[in-house]
Amino acid sequence: MTQQDTICATATAPGGALGVIRVSGPDAIGITSRIFTPVNGLPLEKRKAYTLAFGTIRSANGEIIDEVLVSLFRSSHSYTGEDSTEISCHGSSYILQQVLQRLIECGCRTALPGEYTQRAFLNGKMDLSQAEAVADLIASSSAATHRMAMNQMRGGFSKELVVLKDKLLHLTSLMELELDFSDHEELEFADRTELSQIATDIEHVIARLADSFSVGNVLKNGIPVAIIGETNAGKSTLLNALLNEEKAIVSEIHGTTRDIIEDTIFINGTLFRFIDTAGIRQTDDVVESIGIERTFLKLDQADIVLWMIDGTANENLEELKAEILPRCAGKSLIILFNKSDLLNADRRTCLHDAFAHVDAPKLFLAAKGRIGLDELQAQLLRATALPEVTQNDLIVTNIRHYEALTRALNSIHRVQDGLAMNLSGDFISQDLRECLSHLSEIIGGSFDADAVLDNIFKHFCVGK
Amino acid sequence: MTQQDTICATATAPGGALGVIRVSGPDAIGITSRIFTPVNGLPLEKRKAYTLAFGTIRSANGEIIDEVLVSLFRSSHSYTGEDSTEISCHGSSYILQQVLQRLIECGCRTALPGEYTQRAFLNGKMDLSQAEAVADLIASSSAATHRMAMNQMRGGFSKELVVLKDKLLHLTSLMELELDFSDHEELEFADRTELSQIATDIEHVIARLADSFSVGNVLKNGIPVAIIGETNAGKSTLLNALLNEEKAIVSEIHGTTRDIIEDTIFINGTLFRFIDTAGIRQTDDVVESIGIERTFLKLDQADIVLWMIDGTANENLEELKAEILPRCAGKSLIILFNKSDLLNADRRTCLHDAFAHVDAPKLFLAAKGRIGLDELQAQLLRATALPEVTQNDLIVTNIRHYEALTRALNSIHRVQDGLAMNLSGDFISQDLRECLSHLSEIIGGSFDADAVLDNIFKHFCVGK
Repeated sequence: MTQQDTICATATAPGGALGVIRVSGPDAIGITSRIFTPVNGLPLEKRKAYTLAFGTIRSANGEIIDEVLVSLFRSSHSYTGEDSTEISCHGSSYILQQVLQRLIECGCRTALPGEYTQRAFLNGKMDLSQAEAVADLIASSSAATHRMAMNQMRGGFSKELVVLKDKLLHLTSLMELELDFSDHEELEFADRTELSQIATDIEHVIARLADSFSVGNVLKNGIPVAIIGETNAGKSTLLNALLNEEKAIVSEIHGTTRDIIEDTIFINGTLFRFIDTAGIRQTDDVVESIGIERTFLKLDQADIVLWMIDGTANENLEELKAEILPRCAGKSLIILFNKSDLLNADRRTCLHDAFAHVDAPKLFLAAKGRIGLDELQAQLLRATALPEVTQNDLIVTNIRHYEALTRALNSIHRVQDGLAMNLSGDFISQDLRECLSHLSEIIGGSFDADAVLDNIFKHFCVGK
Repeated sequence: MTQQDTICATATAPGGALGVIRVSGPDAIGITSRIFTPVNGLPLEKRKAYTLAFGTIRSANGEIIDEVLVSLFRSSHSYTGEDSTEISCHGSSYILQQVLQRLIECGCRTALPGEYTQRAFLNGKMDLSQAEAVADLIASSSAATHRMAMNQMRGGFSKELVVLKDKLLHLTSLMELELDFSDHEELEFADRTELSQIATDIEHVIARLADSFSVGNVLKNGIPVAIIGETNAGKSTLLNALLNEEKAIVSEIHGTTRDIIEDTIFINGTLFRFIDTAGIRQTDDVVESIGIERTFLKLDQADIVLWMIDGTANENLEELKAEILPRCAGKSLIILFNKSDLLNADRRTCLHDAFAHVDAPKLFLAAKGRIGLDELQAQLLRATALPEVTQNDLIVTNIRHYEALTRALNSIHRVQDGLAMNLSGDFISQDLRECLSHLSEIIGGSFDADAVLDNIFKHFCVGK
């Protein structure tokens, strides 16, 4: 446990009018008090929790570093569950650095990334899935991601898991009761049909949660869109044009998501993620199969495919259609005839006719001249059938949770099979305990093997 | 007056773990209360000032936008001198935007740039020079700029000005007393020698403050350094090498200074500002005079000149010396022989000999290979004779203040001349009032013409 230390860190981004430094740990109030002189009133240690003190922070030689406001929190009622302070300074990096230095001189150490929330978890202020939701909440950039993160942070997901774990514990108890007390004639045991019914209920809940990840993932990381087409069809011009359109919003998100996702664009509050595909190269009107195979590997990840065709080029459209269309089955395909400003009416008719039998929206646009972008954005939105998320919906957005749920689902399937095949309680009980353990991973804190036995005695009053 | 409005704005930069929204104005607490539900305890309006409340902010349809901490301040004890709240949210731009939107729906308007500090000024919480120091403090990036801004914000400069104004008021009263009451035989008036002495005292103080601007400006904006030399001598390579060396620090400051100053570098806490100069071009060993004239225009702004010589080139050094050296009089010149990795011992001796009689440090370096940069940095620091600034030193850093002081200095000079020439009190009094008015500009609030008369009656008890 590292919680003997008192930690400090700047909690705000550099460059604002205000900068806030957080101090947390057993000596948080003492250390803050050593560098802080209130303008009037009691010293910090004697003040009440949830109060603010105005005063100065001074360097070791007594020079004023800043005039600040200190917020005071005491152990169980703070974010971390420890004594803590928040020092609100003028937002100069020089000042923030000087204050941090003073705190370190007086006994703090610099916090590790996420350490405040980690401490909140270790001190039982939130479970692991709630702690993870804090990071999601801070990164949330749309109504949907915000709602999902807020619900998870406020324990919506945890509550569902606790109910689920209780059901599993009940089932496990019923199984093990039979094993441990089968010689007690006075006890009645649940029959296998009843147990199967409970297992099926549990399986439905786990499956529903695991299934929600496909929606959660898309809402959080964006609807995957692949732009395919010949190397010079204008794919990157289109991407840049779309990105430019939303430049302000995109640059705002960059700070939080730069390292994680590819180019993303918000259109009317819906996030789209553009997947880079290799250009398809046609040589002598033959589609180069290596290029197209590489593209198709990426294509598999996409929900929406934008097929970009250079309207002025003499592509072998029939051959491309034969290659591309079968691979777009189950995806929303949008066909784009680019460089429309260079196309006469005849050429347009000819292109349209070539795709007359393809069931997909077709747009003429000029990416370079930014012509037709609005219509494309409208088409992208139309191709998207995302459910409206409310703050009460439970949607799994975290891949770690999804993986744990998938493992739990496998375990419960083995339980169901075992019950159907009338296997011995020993085997079934083993799978039940595994299922419990996988669910416990999500909210953190290891699965307590004694809980099953406790539950038996608690609910069944075996006596003696 | 705009102070009937309640204003709101985000006070922190985007991208941190925390984001703080400030609300200030007559209805700040009421509006915050309308969107905020405390988890327990009293509603916001009934809470004491300088307390914190934990709770939720909800959208119009009751959905939770965030779990927040609200700090409460009441009129005279807040930063702005008005009722205000600070809402500490999770640092997601989406959340901050939603909270701002809610505040606006409930009656706030978005604050204008600097409006919080403007209100603090209008409500008498600080004078104009203190308000200006808040911006300087936030932008401060070194010990020196921080000290100067802190002293000014805490009213050090204002106090000196108030003393100065009192002295001026005294002198003006003495002058005008003579004018207004010269028929009162019972009164004794100060003689001109005494008045001259007071004027000289005042002139010394104003001159000292105005003079301090040369130091203040350099500390705030950086010591101006010009790098001159032939177009391919490696000037930009050197600048990039120096900037790279300090990349982390430079990028930190960018946010605040990008639009204002040129390339700046901190070396051991001292700020240097590099002035872009046009390259000098030599054709057929003749120095192109247009290029060198352009460079010299820039050179005039520099305190330090780095003359960069490509050690491998056959420059007409004698001709360059004749052009450059006279223009560097009064500046710190450092001579750099670049591309030293390509120079043999003979060539080095030859270069050294060519400058043997030039009284300036000479360094061999290789900017591209980053050789000799440490020595150059040490030389730059040695060429810098800045006084150590303490938090009690009064140093003018603001060009507006400098200009007002210069105008005040001109006025007091006219007063001194008038006294020396024994001009009529009317004329002298006019210049004194002008001087007072210029000093008043600095701390804001127009010069009150009645103050002179008030002062007369207050200090002289003329009676009746």
